[in-house]
Amino acid sequence: MADLSTETLQLIDKWWRAANYLSVGQIYLLDNPLLREPLHRDHVKPRLLGHWGTTPGLTFLYAHLNRAIKEREQSTIYITGPGHGGPGLVAASYLDGTYSEVYSDITKDDEGVRRLFKQFSFPGGIPSHVAPETPGSIHEGGELGYALSHAYGAAFDNPDLLVASIVGDGEAETGPLATSWHSNKFVNPAKDGVVLPILHLNGYKIANPTVLARIPEAELKALMEGYGHKPHFFEVEDESTEDAVSIHRRFAKVLDEVLDEIAEIKARAATGDESRPQWPMIVFRTPKGWTGPATIDGKKTTGSWRAHQVPLASARDTEEHLHDLESWLQSYGPEELFDAEGAVLPEITAALTPSGTLRMSDNPHANGGLLLRDLRLPDFRDFAVDVPTPGGAISEAPRELGKFFTEIIRRNPDNFRIFGPDETASNRLQAVYDVTDKQWNADFYGADVDEHMSRFGRVVEMLSEHQVQGWLEGYLLTGRHGMMSSYEAFIHIVNSMFNQHAKWLKVTNEIPWRRPIASLNYLLSSHVWRQDHNGFSHQDPGFIDHVVNKKAEVVRVYLPADANTLLSTYDHCLRSRQLVNVVVSGKQPSPQWLTMDEAVEHCTRGLGIWEWAGTEKDGEEPDVVLAAAGDVPTIEVLAAADILRQEAPDLKVRMINVVDLMKLQDPKEHPHGLSDKEFDGLFTDDKPIIFAYHGYPWLIHRLTYRRNGHDNIHVRGYKEEGTTTTPFDMVMLNDMDRYHLVIDVIDRVPGMASRYAGLRQRMQDARIRARAYTREHGDDIPEVRDWVWPGARDAAQATEVAATIFTGGDNE
Amino acid sequence: MADLSTETLQLIDKWWRAANYLSVGQIYLLDNPLLREPLHRDHVKPRLLGHWGTTPGLTFLYAHLNRAIKEREQSTIYITGPGHGGPGLVAASYLDGTYSEVYSDITKDDEGVRRLFKQFSFPGGIPSHVAPETPGSIHEGGELGYALSHAYGAAFDNPDLLVASIVGDGEAETGPLATSWHSNKFVNPAKDGVVLPILHLNGYKIANPTVLARIPEAELKALMEGYGHKPHFFEVEDESTEDAVSIHRRFAKVLDEVLDEIAEIKARAATGDESRPQWPMIVFRTPKGWTGPATIDGKKTTGSWRAHQVPLASARDTEEHLHDLESWLQSYGPEELFDAEGAVLPEITAALTPSGTLRMSDNPHANGGLLLRDLRLPDFRDFAVDVPTPGGAISEAPRELGKFFTEIIRRNPDNFRIFGPDETASNRLQAVYDVTDKQWNADFYGADVDEHMSRFGRVVEMLSEHQVQGWLEGYLLTGRHGMMSSYEAFIHIVNSMFNQHAKWLKVTNEIPWRRPIASLNYLLSSHVWRQDHNGFSHQDPGFIDHVVNKKAEVVRVYLPADANTLLSTYDHCLRSRQLVNVVVSGKQPSPQWLTMDEAVEHCTRGLGIWEWAGTEKDGEEPDVVLAAAGDVPTIEVLAAADILRQEAPDLKVRMINVVDLMKLQDPKEHPHGLSDKEFDGLFTDDKPIIFAYHGYPWLIHRLTYRRNGHDNIHVRGYKEEGTTTTPFDMVMLNDMDRYHLVIDVIDRVPGMASRYAGLRQRMQDARIRARAYTREHGDDIPEVRDWVWPGARDAAQATEVAATIFTGGDNE
Repeated sequence: MADLSTETLQLIDKWWRAANYLSVGQIYLLDNPLLREPLHRDHVKPRLLGHWGTTPGLTFLYAHLNRAIKEREQSTIYITGPGHGGPGLVAASYLDGTYSEVYSDITKDDEGVRRLFKQFSFPGGIPSHVAPETPGSIHEGGELGYALSHAYGAAFDNPDLLVASIVGDGEAETGPLATSWHSNKFVNPAKDGVVLPILHLNGYKIANPTVLARIPEAELKALMEGYGHKPHFFEVEDESTEDAVSIHRRFAKVLDEVLDEIAEIKARAATGDESRPQWPMIVFRTPKGWTGPATIDGKKTTGSWRAHQVPLASARDTEEHLHDLESWLQSYGPEELFDAEGAVLPEITAALTPSGTLRMSDNPHANGGLLLRDLRLPDFRDFAVDVPTPGGAISEAPRELGKFFTEIIRRNPDNFRIFGPDETASNRLQAVYDVTDKQWNADFYGADVDEHMSRFGRVVEMLSEHQVQGWLEGYLLTGRHGMMSSYEAFIHIVNSMFNQHAKWLKVTNEIPWRRPIASLNYLLSSHVWRQDHNGFSHQDPGFIDHVVNKKAEVVRVYLPADANTLLSTYDHCLRSRQLVNVVVSGKQPSPQWLTMDEAVEHCTRGLGIWEWAGTEKDGEEPDVVLAAAGDVPTIEVLAAADILRQEAPDLKVRMINVVDLMKLQDPKEHPHGLSDKEFDGLFTDDKPIIFAYHGYPWLIHRLTYRRNGHDNIHVRGYKEEGTTTTPFDMVMLNDMDRYHLVIDVIDRVPGMASRYAGLRQRMQDARIRARAYTREHGDDIPEVRDWVWPGARDAAQATEVAATIFTGGDNE
Repeated sequence: MADLSTETLQLIDKWWRAANYLSVGQIYLLDNPLLREPLHRDHVKPRLLGHWGTTPGLTFLYAHLNRAIKEREQSTIYITGPGHGGPGLVAASYLDGTYSEVYSDITKDDEGVRRLFKQFSFPGGIPSHVAPETPGSIHEGGELGYALSHAYGAAFDNPDLLVASIVGDGEAETGPLATSWHSNKFVNPAKDGVVLPILHLNGYKIANPTVLARIPEAELKALMEGYGHKPHFFEVEDESTEDAVSIHRRFAKVLDEVLDEIAEIKARAATGDESRPQWPMIVFRTPKGWTGPATIDGKKTTGSWRAHQVPLASARDTEEHLHDLESWLQSYGPEELFDAEGAVLPEITAALTPSGTLRMSDNPHANGGLLLRDLRLPDFRDFAVDVPTPGGAISEAPRELGKFFTEIIRRNPDNFRIFGPDETASNRLQAVYDVTDKQWNADFYGADVDEHMSRFGRVVEMLSEHQVQGWLEGYLLTGRHGMMSSYEAFIHIVNSMFNQHAKWLKVTNEIPWRRPIASLNYLLSSHVWRQDHNGFSHQDPGFIDHVVNKKAEVVRVYLPADANTLLSTYDHCLRSRQLVNVVVSGKQPSPQWLTMDEAVEHCTRGLGIWEWAGTEKDGEEPDVVLAAAGDVPTIEVLAAADILRQEAPDLKVRMINVVDLMKLQDPKEHPHGLSDKEFDGLFTDDKPIIFAYHGYPWLIHRLTYRRNGHDNIHVRGYKEEGTTTTPFDMVMLNDMDRYHLVIDVIDRVPGMASRYAGLRQRMQDARIRARAYTREHGDDIPEVRDWVWPGARDAAQATEVAATIFTGGDNE
């Protein structure tokens, strides 16, 4: 690549100065945007909010990438790890022209620039960070740590895409970012896109130096090489007097070298060498707040943490700061950048703006809904489990789901991925390995240990929930489909990432030019009730509580009780858009309740009466409602109903199963909510409701607190009691076992307490006996282990059925 | 260090074999523990639960550390990152003798071994992982990723302690672990202890190879050097035929080299060189499941992921597996390890057991409560803010707390630390820098940029919530005191770590030999209502909801409304034990309500009527209760009360402020809960209650759903609406503003709707006007900005007071 001409470098510099001018203007100016008159305090915003420090580095990189994209016609997106530098990316997309295209009010003239400035971090305007409102972004600049995992997620299955991922050196200290460098052991140079990490080493956070800026360069080089990269170092020293053209020349050379290396790697891969290359990355060391005021109030500012946010905080209040602000703005030479109408000079934009969707701010990958294709879904009914009679079959529900995924993978070879933290098989989705592999691009050791691993596959696993969540988000945000499975307890690791994604979805729902993307689908398995082997540390069903704090319009929670219900639920999830779907399903062998037709109907309603399980008389109200949400609660409720059917045959029991938890909520609070009339019709408004719930019992009260019958609802669920013990002991520890549910009925149905004192005592005794037996034998009592629903009891398969319930399969 | 004798090495090998035998026995055997008779299926547990794969490596390292500890008399604790290897650590502490000391039932004979085996992963027994029940552990082996941050937390201020921290190569893929290597840039070789990281590279996770085992050794070496370490490589190849003595000799040499290097560093530091050394670490590459069956069912097992859990899963069910299990157990030569009574041969334990508390399983640092000293606390009342009249003073509450901390630091120079993710100053605790520095041991650049930084200080900051939480946990678990501050929204990053710590506290409460440790204290500032500048991504008050799912006995939540209340609250938190205290307080200038005496009384009650704010008549019930929990809600409620006082002077308003949120809960559910009688006395059981709450409104319903007056409670709070806007616009977006609260009163107090239709309309208009003004001027309307509580209105400071409320200070 020949050296660039000085003229080109000068144009790059002008573009950069324009972007910096536009950035500073956004942070400070309410009016007089192009300094057509002397700056007055009234031109300065009353609340100065924004982050300058990282911004000039971001615009510098954007300028140079624009130059290279134009030359190479390389489809590129830009991930802004230091997302606080919002003004820089807004400025860049304004210079690209994209901003005015999507926000027609922000015109290319004085008035447009004024509006651009005013709206920034201003009520009714745009956020101060890179945000969904920023064209070209798939990465909210709020929480830090996910720049590289988002970037790699975007790169999967996009072989022609370059993802320039700017990593802030503050962000680089976060755990998720520190491990995400290892993503390079998973991508395939022939079949995936390229991530170019640029470590933006400006040296400071809010109030401290950054770790990576304060280790010897040899250590930093070793670190990057240890991560599998070939680092290219570029530095502009603090208080450097090097002229701008020289700086741009040096960087353009580094960038060209890097892009040439990438091209060579891609060429090699195209000839069949898909092994892991030493991908290049750039260490970009520049002063924090570069081009800003060197000192303010006598204190070093540029090149220090003091440049992090708004360096001239008193620009509206003191003459000195106001004057310094004006000098700073003038230092970019706006008169050389804007024409008389206030438009950026066409030679600047013409030289640096790639055409159409090659503009990073207009790349459709960064507005993934534009590229989204519906999944080619097989009919999930084809994967139905045969359920001759309720309880008359046994299945591990996610195993059946895995079979469904197998066919989805077959039909969608480049558009659907499964992510997981080393748990895809443990969570029973291993059927997918019949048609695909785990993608891996580190060393291979041979088939005796490396099962289902290759350089290309639809499953991606690394032992980091952060990493797989980040990959999945990046994959979805660029217009593809996917899901991830996790042990239920450890999905809390990504609580904060979930928050950010849910917020992203909520905001993009309100931005017309953002197109809907596929939902983020979780399968939470290895759940609280069947972490009887890993014990207390692995028992936490609270992710649901966390999720329902987010806007109802973007969250859904499903608790299918068997395989057919899970299949129907997941089909629905995969067709949905702009949601986070949380599906909780155990993986252990479990009785099956519904035929596929029944499951479809049940899922369509979201909840319903299981008439075969109750003892209601036609046309009469029940005496008590037994409700269950979740697979284990369903078993216990049915077992309790079974006892009541035998022991209290005249009691009219209604059994309700809930699969869509949001049905419980008030329709004013969640779009899925039942009307009060429907709710009362099911749950009654005056009968006792004994509700066995998968998670923390509070949530059911929270969801139903406005319901008429709320005071009658008595909820059993996980109350943070657990250890390494048997499955039935786990439900007993939390008073959700069948015997306790029967006691709850006796205690709450008027008149039962006296009449059924004997039954109540027998239930107490059964609990004590079960506990004693378990402690002696290390296993559950036979009457629990062998229990099957009466309708299945006489069937041929009863013995086999009983033998597998609650035995636990393996203990992963 | 001279080579060890073959005899010593043979004894190490015997100790190791004994530990491995005891580990395998725990996983499989219900009876016949020392194979005194042929193994029968009934001797095998019915549920085989545990993790073998990592165990032999852990016992190997323990054996060698024991040898070195004995020689060097080096106080050492052992952090088991691969905590699934529970049996190994139980076996080691049994061999140390500690296990029988704390669990007298587990004697040193056949019967004791039988009990030791049976209890493991057995109902009523002990968990399968390293757990609070395991002597010598401060690190639950459930969730992965915190081995090194716990280790460094333990090392701070313990200059004579060695923390051997075993890092699993699965765990090493997690984000928190990946960044925690950088902890070495924070410790001081003279004043802190030493962490010796041992990367346990056994190559496999549940179902996959590990990343770090599948990169070239040169890359791994570069990675460790990049992290600032000097790696020492030790390898035992898969299917190695090297004899045991040779292996032990090689490792003993590596360990001695490493310990010698550490001793040299410590010696250098003692002479004044406290700069960052290249601390040694060990890469310990051994086959997964080392010493286990090479193949099972024809498939490679040792040296593969198949050895991860229970390799012979059918030992009770098939003759072949049973036979293989017996051979495996016999391979350790139990007859050479145990005497006729079933005790381990004394020459083995004598050679390898350090004396007393030098045993890692008995080191008091691993049962921190033993070492815990009360903090020397100054009288927090000395830091009182002068509040001449309610609302008559302005303060940034955490700034006052910082002054209190300053004196705590002075009085407790080695026993109290403040941790934070780069936010200690942003969260306004910067007064502490008057007496201490931020501890840092990477490069220094000079005083103009490196303020308050040195090689020794009481504040430790890195931009990773995981890291600082892990450090703090390690510090507390080893018997010291501390706190961390965080932006409220991003504390969700450590939700899962909080879960594990809360579980640890719950379980240790039930273990008599575990002594209480200091509480984990959070200060959540930069909260949802004053993240008006950083916008939506920084707005999430849901950590409280997450916390209250954990056992009531270990969690507390406080929402002090002003500085004096915050001081009183924090004094209480710092005196408490075995809790997680969540304290939420804004950092912006805010009116002060209570004198210190009033604050102390208020905090003692936890909630109460603010009589000066209400308009009740003596002896009459109020017409409406206005309640507030949180600083911003308190302002809005008081402003609403002010409006009502003027506009509806005959309305009897009661104002209640809640500082201890758990007071709202039923006393059966939380020890702090008010009795129903007390609750009704405050809130009434029939009057409308308008409750302005800091967080998601649901929680108040959840906490109060059993209260008599519950149906009358109407809660306003954060409903996930926010962006970059003004403070008052933020409360308006969520309908928690003063005007809306007045409307809520009018709508809910019987008879007001018709009588006060005009006021209602004016409130609506005020909202519209406020919104329009804000969008025009970028600021809040003067009537909001200038509002002060009537009692303060005429005071001299009123203007000054008004000028600082809601203006926002800086925008960090």
